[in-house]
Amino acid sequence: MDDWIEQLKWDEQELIPAIVQDKKTNRIVMFAWMNRESLQQTQKTGHAVYWSRSRKKLWAKGEESGNTQIIKSIRSDCDQDVLLLTIEQVGGIACHTGRESCFFNKLNNEQQWEVTDKVLKDPKEMYSK
Amino acid sequence: MDDWIEQLKWDEQELIPAIVQDKKTNRIVMFAWMNRESLQQTQKTGHAVYWSRSRKKLWAKGEESGNTQIIKSIRSDCDQDVLLLTIEQVGGIACHTGRESCFFNKLNNEQQWEVTDKVLKDPKEMYSK
Repeated sequence: MDDWIEQLKWDEQELIPAIVQDKKTNRIVMFAWMNRESLQQTQKTGHAVYWSRSRKKLWAKGEESGNTQIIKSIRSDCDQDVLLLTIEQVGGIACHTGRESCFFNKLNNEQQWEVTDKVLKDPKEMYSK
Repeated sequence: MDDWIEQLKWDEQELIPAIVQDKKTNRIVMFAWMNRESLQQTQKTGHAVYWSRSRKKLWAKGEESGNTQIIKSIRSDCDQDVLLLTIEQVGGIACHTGRESCFFNKLNNEQQWEVTDKVLKDPKEMYSK
């Protein structure tokens, strides 16, 4: 495996968390996990590939929906145990609910989670293949 | 515990990851973990309190360095298992290395981690108390 990948600190499950920021809007659109192979593929192909902890397999972002993520930069933090990807979001939708960002719940003054983002595309259309 | 806190999905260690974004610069400055108590204190006091996994105790951000974080908004994602905090960074330094952001390592074209941020304050000064 590449040196720069081995220099990262992988957790006990051999994973690393990845924060995903839209380069154009600066919004955080997603949070996902990577294993070494997904990170290597991400860097090589220039498109985000994650590790699905629930399905236990590689997950090329947008493989079903078409909403791929083009990699603009890869950063790591002071402890080398968290990644920050800046991306260009194809289709402008990062969330499986059909919203721009996964972070659409905002805590309001009544201490309730309030949905702040519109659904831009019906998930049934996104995953109809 | 408050309803909005219980509505979140806590992991097997009763923690939730928190992404920390500077409201002014839009930069991701930090990534940390919270337990229920730290999140409750964060909301109540308006200042970020995290859970230190290494020291196994609450950690009021800036308690030693003075670089506290004033909470501007609290968001959660589609699965309710990740938080996004937007903050005002007192002192302009979020990282314990004395840099604005913890994400100061950028993968360059030679596939090496390159430091992109200057040290704004000597850590020895920050933690001299």
